[in-house]
Amino acid sequence: MNIMRVYFDNNATTRLDDRALEEMITFYREKFGNPNSAHGMGIEANLHLEKAREKIAKILGVSPSEIFFTSCATEAINWIHKAVAEVFEKRKRTIITTPIEHKAVLETLKYLSLRGFRVKYIPVDSRGVVKLEELERMIDEDTFLVSVMAANNEVGTIQPIEEVVKIVKKKNKEILVHVDAVQVIGKIPFSLERLNVDYASFSAHKFHGPKGVGIAFIKKGAPIRPFVHGGGQERGLRSGTQNVPGIVGAAKAMELAVENLESTMKHMERLRRKLAEGLRKLGAHIITPLDVSLPNTLSVSFSNLRGSTLQNLLSSHGIFVSTSSACTSKDENLSHVLTAMGIDRRIAQGAIRISLCRYNTEEEVNYFLEKTGEILSFLGINENNRR
Amino acid sequence: MNIMRVYFDNNATTRLDDRALEEMITFYREKFGNPNSAHGMGIEANLHLEKAREKIAKILGVSPSEIFFTSCATEAINWIHKAVAEVFEKRKRTIITTPIEHKAVLETLKYLSLRGFRVKYIPVDSRGVVKLEELERMIDEDTFLVSVMAANNEVGTIQPIEEVVKIVKKKNKEILVHVDAVQVIGKIPFSLERLNVDYASFSAHKFHGPKGVGIAFIKKGAPIRPFVHGGGQERGLRSGTQNVPGIVGAAKAMELAVENLESTMKHMERLRRKLAEGLRKLGAHIITPLDVSLPNTLSVSFSNLRGSTLQNLLSSHGIFVSTSSACTSKDENLSHVLTAMGIDRRIAQGAIRISLCRYNTEEEVNYFLEKTGEILSFLGINENNRR
Repeated sequence: MNIMRVYFDNNATTRLDDRALEEMITFYREKFGNPNSAHGMGIEANLHLEKAREKIAKILGVSPSEIFFTSCATEAINWIHKAVAEVFEKRKRTIITTPIEHKAVLETLKYLSLRGFRVKYIPVDSRGVVKLEELERMIDEDTFLVSVMAANNEVGTIQPIEEVVKIVKKKNKEILVHVDAVQVIGKIPFSLERLNVDYASFSAHKFHGPKGVGIAFIKKGAPIRPFVHGGGQERGLRSGTQNVPGIVGAAKAMELAVENLESTMKHMERLRRKLAEGLRKLGAHIITPLDVSLPNTLSVSFSNLRGSTLQNLLSSHGIFVSTSSACTSKDENLSHVLTAMGIDRRIAQGAIRISLCRYNTEEEVNYFLEKTGEILSFLGINENNRR
Repeated sequence: MNIMRVYFDNNATTRLDDRALEEMITFYREKFGNPNSAHGMGIEANLHLEKAREKIAKILGVSPSEIFFTSCATEAINWIHKAVAEVFEKRKRTIITTPIEHKAVLETLKYLSLRGFRVKYIPVDSRGVVKLEELERMIDEDTFLVSVMAANNEVGTIQPIEEVVKIVKKKNKEILVHVDAVQVIGKIPFSLERLNVDYASFSAHKFHGPKGVGIAFIKKGAPIRPFVHGGGQERGLRSGTQNVPGIVGAAKAMELAVENLESTMKHMERLRRKLAEGLRKLGAHIITPLDVSLPNTLSVSFSNLRGSTLQNLLSSHGIFVSTSSACTSKDENLSHVLTAMGIDRRIAQGAIRISLCRYNTEEEVNYFLEKTGEILSFLGINENNRR
């Protein structure tokens, strides 16, 4: 039986763009030199490494000297938070974040709290938007770092980052700001040029780049320490031979992700609206706040059907969605994001996340809605609730 | 002009094996799921991730649960040393290593020494072999970790790791041992099965695997802490989405690197002997101890010609060798390895490292010897010294 394959889990990871892969293959096969070697092949590899850095810096509106390559966004996040904590450990102890950050931030801060740091969480409203007045109240003399994501991975909520930065810097311009920008590239316009954040983290495999490449933005002059010591790569701040093929692929993928951003956004938004409408008709509760969220992300719930059950049944039809985030999908606990948003427990248990990309089609949306309807009918669910 | 390209810098990095690349492409193009996703594509990716882990564990003679994937050997080395230091920080403070370790070890230990740890260096003899009797003398009540490389990257010297482990464990079996095994895979037989070390580090791109994949062996029961916090990947010890295509490629490359090891070793050794003989005739001083070294590594020096000059001239002929290691090649200081071996300053300044792989040919060796001879003649060097 030939079943369709519908990949609706693009916030977890994406398919590598073929044009990025093509460039990578050249670096695997021919230009494979170590960029730290002083001979011709090393110089060649280094040249392309720096070109990739320039390309990414230009897209993000910053200087190439502010861009550092890591192995993933989680590493970039660990590096920035731990290094800044190390810089401040003798003077200040408080970090402010949100309860809906990715585990990379939350677990890193939990580790730091065991090492004597205090972590405060800005409450979010029912849409998952941080309460700015609470942030303003929370900042005190002991605060040295504020870390807020640009957009949430589970429900897609976009944070008012500009306002966050303004509030923090107005209160005390010495307080540093990190933004987890993993979910925004290729989904909404994003530039660091005027944002005035000190640090940002990105992940190539979330925008059709390869797994194994993270990007850290560290503003000129912002305090930092090495996280991985050794040969002194990345201007002494991140040792280890750079993954040149991966980095070249990441730069190409970022370029492709932003080149037709407006039409990509429209395309995804159109599919998302159709999905939301179709699912509502099937009795779903829409969790994602459609007006303040990424155009590709839709969290919905059938409150009388566990998300993991629906996920499994859809998977057997070749449709791939997630329950919450890939990084927490293996444990059975409720999503910390939905909990922080005050979502009712039954709705939270039923949550599935659909996350689209530019490759998804209307045909896939139709197939998904059809199969979801069949599953609900088969299970005898929501027959009475349908609108 | 069509010049031959001779890559003799395989201790810096290697060309990816085409068969490994082929497997990787499947994972970039089709099986691109996040191994932490609970749906079909996640399960598929996870299955192949675990198969790769099993393959590597089998080759190394350990359990798959003792193998962890990182982004590079430098990360694995940082992780192990820093985590073990964190475990012991309240009780013991001394780490023993050698002065000829890779910078990944030396710089990590330098960082730890700034955090209050004491680092002691086992002297090496003129061949670069650690003095075992000195090691025995150095171990004291405060020692909790001994870190010794299996083989040196710059000169190829193989360390008597079995004896090192025996001495350490006989003195105090609680003392932990790390072995940097980055340079041995595909060059000499290496198994962890009976070695009794607690930790080991490997790098895929040194054995024709991809850049961006390191492997950490952490013996069952050996103390460890997470280095990168987040989604809890790698059994909670190394968060961040696993680089599945890279890991699959690394496992394939390791398999290929060891499958015809004996003939590979013979092939490289034959080429190396020919190189050593030819270079000796041209007046070179052979630094590498040929009887206790990797069959692919040859460090030589023309004492009246700077290594970097010869490297550049060879590079213009399409021949790629290094001066010391790629990770230190950009700074002008003398190699710390040659210094520790007590090599005369003039010889050390002239050192170049030739490092072979299974793809190198006799034709390449002949071309190299011919071009080196031409360069020396052109510069009027060693005319009188030639034997």
